Parts: sequence; C-alpha cells; structure tokens
Amino acid sequence: MKNKISINEKANKLLDFLVQEKDKLGIEVFKGPLGCNIIDAGVRTKGSVEAGLIVSEICLGGLGKTNLLPYNNIEISAYAINVYAAEPVLSCLGSQYAGWSLSSGDFFSLGSGPVRSIAQKEEIFKELKYKEKPQNTIVVLEVEKFPPEAIVKKIAADCNLEPEKISFIVTPTISLSGNIQVVSRVLEVAIHKIHELRFPLERIEHGLGFAPLPPIAKDFITGMGRTNDAIIYGGVVQLMIQGSDSELEELSRKLPSNSSKDYGKPFKEIFKNYEMDFYKIDGSLFSPAVIIINSVDSGKTFRGGKVNEELIKKSFFDV
Amino acid sequence: MKNKISINEKANKLLDFLVQEKDKLGIEVFKGPLGCNIIDAGVRTKGSVEAGLIVSEICLGGLGKTNLLPYNNIEISAYAINVYAAEPVLSCLGSQYAGWSLSSGDFFSLGSGPVRSIAQKEEIFKELKYKEKPQNTIVVLEVEKFPPEAIVKKIAADCNLEPEKISFIVTPTISLSGNIQVVSRVLEVAIHKIHELRFPLERIEHGLGFAPLPPIAKDFITGMGRTNDAIIYGGVVQLMIQGSDSELEELSRKLPSNSSKDYGKPFKEIFKNYEMDFYKIDGSLFSPAVIIINSVDSGKTFRGGKVNEELIKKSFFDV
Amino acid sequence: MKNKISINEKANKLLDFLVQEKDKLGIEVFKGPLGCNIIDAGVRTKGSVEAGLIVSEICLGGLGKTNLLPYNNIEISAYAINVYAAEPVLSCLGSQYAGWSLSSGDFFSLGSGPVRSIAQKEEIFKELKYKEKPQNTIVVLEVEKFPPEAIVKKIAADCNLEPEKISFIVTPTISLSGNIQVVSRVLEVAIHKIHELRFPLERIEHGLGFAPLPPIAKDFITGMGRTNDAIIYGGVVQLMIQGSDSELEELSRKLPSNSSKDYGKPFKEIFKNYEMDFYKIDGSLFSPAVIIINSVDSGKTFRGGKVNEELIKKSFFDV
Repeated sequence: MKNKISINEKANKLLDFLVQEKDKLGIEVFKGPLGCNIIDAGVRTKGSVEAGLIVSEICLGGLGKTNLLPYNNIEISAYAINVYAAEPVLSCLGSQYAGWSLSSGDFFSLGSGPVRSIAQKEEIFKELKYKEKPQNTIVVLEVEKFPPEAIVKKIAADCNLEPEKISFIVTPTISLSGNIQVVSRVLEVAIHKIHELRFPLERIEHGLGFAPLPPIAKDFITGMGRTNDAIIYGGVVQLMIQGSDSELEELSRKLPSNSSKDYGKPFKEIFKNYEMDFYKIDGSLFSPAVIIINSVDSGKTFRGGKVNEELIKKSFFDV
Repeated sequence: MKNKISINEKANKLLDFLVQEKDKLGIEVFKGPLGCNIIDAGVRTKGSVEAGLIVSEICLGGLGKTNLLPYNNIEISAYAINVYAAEPVLSCLGSQYAGWSLSSGDFFSLGSGPVRSIAQKEEIFKELKYKEKPQNTIVVLEVEKFPPEAIVKKIAADCNLEPEKISFIVTPTISLSGNIQVVSRVLEVAIHKIHELRFPLERIEHGLGFAPLPPIAKDFITGMGRTNDAIIYGGVVQLMIQGSDSELEELSRKLPSNSSKDYGKPFKEIFKNYEMDFYKIDGSLFSPAVIIINSVDSGKTFRGGKVNEELIKKSFFDV
Repeated sequence: MKNKISINEKANKLLDFLVQEKDKLGIEVFKGPLGCNIIDAGVRTKGSVEAGLIVSEICLGGLGKTNLLPYNNIEISAYAINVYAAEPVLSCLGSQYAGWSLSSGDFFSLGSGPVRSIAQKEEIFKELKYKEKPQNTIVVLEVEKFPPEAIVKKIAADCNLEPEKISFIVTPTISLSGNIQVVSRVLEVAIHKIHELRFPLERIEHGLGFAPLPPIAKDFITGMGRTNDAIIYGGVVQLMIQGSDSELEELSRKLPSNSSKDYGKPFKEIFKNYEMDFYKIDGSLFSPAVIIINSVDSGKTFRGGKVNEELIKKSFFDV
C-alpha cells in the first residue's frame, strides 16, 4: 500500500530551506564521511531560534508546526515553545521520537527524524505500519560530535541509500537549536507514554503542546536536565482522543509526569541518583506536567497534573 | 469601478494549498453534484489544526491571519485562536459572515466565504458596495452534510458560474476545523454588531481579536453553544476606529455581549429556553466579551465588558 | 572580504512582497523625487498590522521575525509585539537602528534600514565592519512627510546608487504600521545600550524580546511617548551572551531602563521637562524594562528590572 504522505519528502523541503538560508540561520553545511551531508546546528556554530524551529519541524517529519512565543510567567522563562502536529502519532512516534540507537566506538546517539521510517529498526514500526523508500533522508542527532564513518555506513546500509543521499543534522543539547528541538518534544513524550500505557494509538486524533524555553546549560547533563524539566514540570499538552469516559479519565490520571515515582526532583538529580543510568529512571516520568484530554466521543474534558513552578526554577536557575 | 483587491482570488490561493496538502491536513477532496468540488474538512475526515486555520483564512477572503497559540488560563483552555484582518469590514462582513441562507429539502446552511460577494443576495452588499465576478469561487458551509444538487445548482445560477468552478468546504461545528473556524469569527461578530448598532462601518480602520479554543462537542447544539460562548464570554477584540470620544465611549458600552438582555447563561441554555429558535435570541448577545476601542482621532482608549471565566467553564466542561 | 549574508538582498525580498500586496496591506507605492520609490505606510494610507510587521522585518534587514500576539494583561494591552533576530547585532545595529541623521530644510528624520550599511555614515560601522554594495536599497523613515529631492539626492550620492534603485518606506509614529515598527525595536534598544555600556558586541549570540502594543496616538509627541514607554516600562528582552558571571551580573543591573536617572515618568513628560530636546534625555533610559541574560558560558541566568504597569497605563491611557 502506498503512503498518502511522505514524511521524508516533507522534511526534505524544510531541509532545503535550512541549507539555502544557512548563513542567516547561523549553521554550517559540509560533506562528511563517505560523502554524506552534515548540517552543523550548534557544534561549531551558534545556530539561531529559527534554525531550532526548523530542525524541530524536520524532526516532526514536516507534519508539525513549532513556534517560539512569550511565556505567561517571565519569572520562569520569557519564552515558550509551542508545537502541534497533523497526524500526531506518525509525526511524533514515526519521526520525532529519538528511538534508533546508534553507536560506534565512543560515539553514541539516539537517532531521530524521518530516516527511522526507512530503516524500520524499532519495534514501534510494526505497530505504526508505516514504511518509506524515499530518494533522500535526514537523521537528527542530539550530540556534540559529528557522526563517524561507521555510523554513516551503517545507516546507508540499513536504508539502502547512498551516503550522499543522507543528511545528518547535528544539534547538541547545550546549543540553542538543540535546546529548542528537545523541548519541542513535549507532545511526543505524551504520545510515547500513551503507547507505554498500552492505550491504542489510533484513537489519538489531534495533539498540541507547549513548554517553557530553558536557559542553555553549560554541560550536557545540566542541559538534558533542564530540557527534560521544561517538559516534566512545565509542559502542557492537549489531546483530542476517542474513548469511553472512564478510559480517558484514567488516562488523564496516569499520563502526567506526577504519576511517576521519580517525580519531584530536578531531572539531573534523579539521573545522578541512578548513577547516570538513564534506563533506571522510571519511564513514566517522561511526560508533560499537565494533560488535558478532550473526548471526541462524549465532548467531556479530563485533566491531570499541574505545572510545578518551584521545580522549574530550581532546574533552570540553580547551577 | 474595478476592485483593487479580489477576495475570491486571495481565498483561491489558500484553497490551492489546502487541496495540495490535503493528506497532511486530514481532509478529503472529491467531486460533488454537477461536478462541483467538495472539500470535506470534518464530515468523514478528522481535519487538523492547520486545516481549521486555513479554512478560517479562506472565510476571511484571504485578507486575515489566524493562528492558534497558548491561552493565558489553562483552567479554561490551553489554546486560543487569534485573528486579525487587513480591511476588516470587507474581510469579515463581505466574506466571513455566514449570511447567505441556503436551504433545500432537509438541507439548511448559512453560506459563508467569498462567494457571497458574487451572488450579492444580502442587504449588506448594498452598503459594502463590493461585487466580484471571478473565475472560481468558494462556499464555506458549517454543516454535517454535503450540499445536495439543488444547492449547487442554485449557487451556480446565482453566481453565473459552472458548478465545477465552485468549491464547497464542509466543516461541521463538532469537528476541530469547524470549531476553529467558528471561533475565528470573534472579530466578525464585533463588526457585525457595530453594523447592527448603525455605527458607520467605514470608520473601522483595524481589528484584532482572540478567544479560547473550546473542547469539541458531541452534538451540534453543544458545539454551537461552546463556540458561541468562547466568543460571548471569552472573546477579546481590539478595534481602531474614527469617531468622537462620546460616540466611541458609547460604542464601547453597547458593543460587548454583556449589554444584551440574554447575557449570563451558557448559549445552549439560552437557545433551549427560546425553543431552539435562533432568531428569538437577542441579536446584541452575539459579540465578544471584551471590547477595546482605540480612537484614531483622539488617541483615547475606551473599554467595555469583561471575560466571564465562570460561564466559559460551565459551557466548556459541563455536558 | 565578501559578506556571507546581504541584509539589503533579504530586505528587498520582503519589499517585493510589500509592493505586490500593497492593496491588501493598506499601503500605497508611487514614484517620488528623482524617480525614487515611495512606499506610503501610514501618511495618506491607513496601513495594517501585517504592513507594520513586514516593515519591522525590513528594518531588521530581513534577519528578524516579528509577530503580533495576545498580551498577558489586557488591562494594559490586548496585544504584544514579539521579535527575534538571527545575528542580532548586525540585524539591530547594522540595519534597524535609526542612526542616520537626514535633514534638509524643514525635513528631519533618522534613517533606518539596510541602506545604512551602504552609506557607512555612522561610527558604529567601524565596529561592525560590515559594508554592502547592493543593486537596490531601502530607507525607512519614521516621519509624517515624504522625503524631499535634496534628501533623495544626498542618499543616492552617499550610496552611489541611482535614485530609482532606492525605496523609501515612510511610516509615521501615529500610524499603526509606524507604531508596530517602533515597538519592534525592543531588542535593538537593548543591544544599543549594551554597546553604550562598552560591553563587547561580538559576545551577544541570540536575542529575543516583546513589548505591549500601545494605542495609536493623536500627535507625534504622544506617539513617541507611548512607543518608548511600551519598551522602557513594558519591554522584556532575553539575551544569550558570552562572558564571566560577574560581567553578566553587572550588565543585568545596568542594562534595564530603571538604571537611568530619568526613569519613573512617562516619556512624554520627561521629553517636555527637557524642553523637547531629545539629546538631553539620559541615554541609559532607552532600554527595555526587564532584561534576562543567559550566560552561554556558565549556564547561569541574570535578571534586572521589572515591568511597570502603573506607568504603562498612565502613558497609554492618559491623554
């Protein structure tokens, strides 16, 4: 069956703009190992707000819109990142989710972006039943190093594409572009947790979310902490979902981050308490602070969680 | 005299985008009776935020901008719809106003969009003195059914256009796209009421407004109630108008919804109290909650009305 | 050395759109003295929100984004102007800053826009080390009169361009477009004051800001007062800057408007108290109310100043 939409095609149009406006956007484009294309959005470049937003929309497979706009509490942040996606499940889980584990030597990154729908290396694609074979593709890497040859080779093989058809966007968490593209995952984490809770994905019709923009951090761990806390303690997500009132009410209780046993401390502290083993953190923590579910069946609204200003401030302003 | 702007031409450019991106936007396009074009934006499709915004801008004759962005009170809604229009009177009354009564058998709808300026079936056009004869046109129908042949035939005849030159956007109130396009009328209802108050339209220079996005309702009457309440109890409109201070001060008192004798109950309740006879409702209720008038002559500001959070919550969350 | 970006080229693309959509945007375009192009954005025209935003982005040399969106306190204003710029120093000081003094007979204006980088008439360009020789250019004049022949001749000579290659956008403070384009300078005044404080400009990596939209004034002096007060008492600017914590902490104290001895009265009153001599006003007053500095070195945040609601209301609503 032919897909009606191509997330690679849509994302490639955004990439064309990114490359064309590279000087204005504060990024650099050059050839990497085996002739692949590297877009440096924050490693040796400073990036920009607009670069961060376009990278976010590329992560969303060209199906989402992001913008940066004043936040309602300047004691926390002057700005928030806002995101919504048409076909939120495909956009967030089929493209934006950083689910493809890529490692070689001392290089490690979780790959994100429309490339994942070609490689089909993750369990989730069995459920999404979405596969593409486009001419070009994009890998988004939230790291501070450029991908080594072995990674390029592996991805090219897994996608059956020549390396020169693959573009790597490299965007460290501690760059502005990286900061923005992580926080733009506020909707994705909600949808990912819905999946973890084994609620049927096909019932999710629409999704929107926003979270405060954190100050850029000095080091990766603080940056990871702040961007996660922006979502976990400050993210607000609204979903329009099919389902019975009791199912949706239950979902609204289980979905927010405060349903997690690890809730209540800055993410960096939690991470350190688990000896920096990411996979020991309770998975249900990765979710927005506030969830608003509108039932498209009954017209009722169910809410859960709340914004935790104290913890956001601790995360954003303590060093 | 030739018009300087063609609202049909501007709206058709937006329609081209809607049709081209239909799969991403969650809508369908097909041929209807007599070869007309049907855009299903919520009947058998789920639509999307972006589809709702583009349909809203088509309603505005391509002269307005709409966006969806975080609302300042998440207890009411996480999102608000924002709208402003160049040439607000032409845009809102000459195109967006749902003023063309279309009925045939059990089909009834109030037609909206740039088609109205061709058919000239309404009194208002005598005052607007605006008429178009474009090659193509668009009818927006806020209904749950596709238009029957008799309606297509009537519109084609009234516009002297072949049916294949006419596109019908069908967007039910209980769809997301429909929900958005109704609430995007927050500015239009203000301008319509200014007209009802017999204040000269040509004195309105600029207009902007926003209102909270209501949860999608289960049935048409609840949906109509919530979208109207979003405007009546939550809408904020700012207008830049010519006039003496006393005229504008008076207008700022008479214009907000709270000047109506029917103010104070959810719209659905009012509607039911009048035995579902829309035309028995006090016309002055159809207006935003808050009006801010800037005099372009004196530089003074006049305000009237206020946001009624209690009633919005009642409307949005009681079922 | 060739510039990587041309602010004239980027601004000219926006100008093309402005001219093409002139009727919708409420502006007029005609030939002025010596065949130059005049864009009337508020002298004999009413302009529009969108015209104001595009003129603002032209002022920013095509490197900035502006939008108009709901403000968080409708008692002050229903709307705020939001701005951010890639390459904020080049965009704000190399283009947007109204630094080129143009006078002839009874005509006086401070010229703004990308033309300044061609003429190089200001000290600041020695520091910016940025010079262009484009085919076309744009001068933005915040005045109520069209430029006389002598001004056109002077600019043509200083830029070594034929007059027909020069477009003048004329936008009075008391027009909507003018109002918007002045308040969109909220980020520029912060960067300008950083320069005045002799902090190294090259350390500024990113900048964003917003300020409430003031009501259009009746006369130039009130308009100048309100637009300045929107920034001085209501502007919020966030900057990502390199530097030691002590330097940035000091900057966060000195940068906000409340560090000025003239702080505390509406701008119009201050201006009158100095017998309308602009240059007697303490230069450090021209700055946003709130400054948030994120250190890109330490990850710390430094804040200074606060929004002064009382003074904004006095400025916006007293006449």
